[in-house]
Amino acid sequence: MPDIRHRVGIAAPQHRVYETLSTKDGLAEFWTKAEGDPEVGGKLSFFFGDPAPSAVMEIAELSPNERVQWRCVGGPPEWVGTTVTFDLKDSGEETVLLFTHGDWREPVEFMHHCSTKWATFLIGLRSGLEGGAFTAFPDDTKISGSWR
Amino acid sequence: MPDIRHRVGIAAPQHRVYETLSTKDGLAEFWTKAEGDPEVGGKLSFFFGDPAPSAVMEIAELSPNERVQWRCVGGPPEWVGTTVTFDLKDSGEETVLLFTHGDWREPVEFMHHCSTKWATFLIGLRSGLEGGAFTAFPDDTKISGSWR
Repeated sequence: MPDIRHRVGIAAPQHRVYETLSTKDGLAEFWTKAEGDPEVGGKLSFFFGDPAPSAVMEIAELSPNERVQWRCVGGPPEWVGTTVTFDLKDSGEETVLLFTHGDWREPVEFMHHCSTKWATFLIGLRSGLEGGAFTAFPDDTKISGSWR
Repeated sequence: MPDIRHRVGIAAPQHRVYETLSTKDGLAEFWTKAEGDPEVGGKLSFFFGDPAPSAVMEIAELSPNERVQWRCVGGPPEWVGTTVTFDLKDSGEETVLLFTHGDWREPVEFMHHCSTKWATFLIGLRSGLEGGAFTAFPDDTKISGSWR
């Protein structure tokens, strides 16, 4: 099935990257406002300016310092049923984050958009954890005038 | 087969985006230095700081203002045999560029890296054509300390 994949290398300790990906404060710092239960089996709702959440993720796996995995259970119809996985490892020089937003049913135009958009958030994650600026919503990098 | 996909919306005429993607000057402006024959059946070599080209693309299709497609015939082993396609359309509000670097044999870590890296060049293409800065090599956006 079609997957979105990305890789960034981050000059920050693996536990610091994991903390950002596994806590509501960290997720808000690099992606967007999160509410709910961030433990395995819990659900996190993510907000992009609307009163209703734009996406709801069930926490499928938390392997400390190594993996965060979500299953999308609410949000855009194209997202429901997909999985989002953040895998971390130490390359010896930096923390490598391998990202996969997998199991899309079809490689629709919205998937192309989300791929580019995830890149912006992950590059912002790298920047923020290295002492620069994060690029979380609503200060996210714009990639289209008509699609958010 | 695994594919890299991206989408950007650009506030520039479709023919201007096509010109950037189909000429050596345009490619140098947003990606990197290109040498060779940019016509269908010709080959373009792309340079990233080394005397030898890092990638060689055969021009598979040029549909004016609508599509540029390459077949990779030299460069990283993982790239050889893959195709790179830039599809353009007018959304009514902007020029939409759908990008596909398709037909990877395996979703290797290098593919994750290239996906994020293509995003940076396409976001730079958008920026440059809208009057901001391009982010071509060697002024490209860094996404890892250890991988270029």
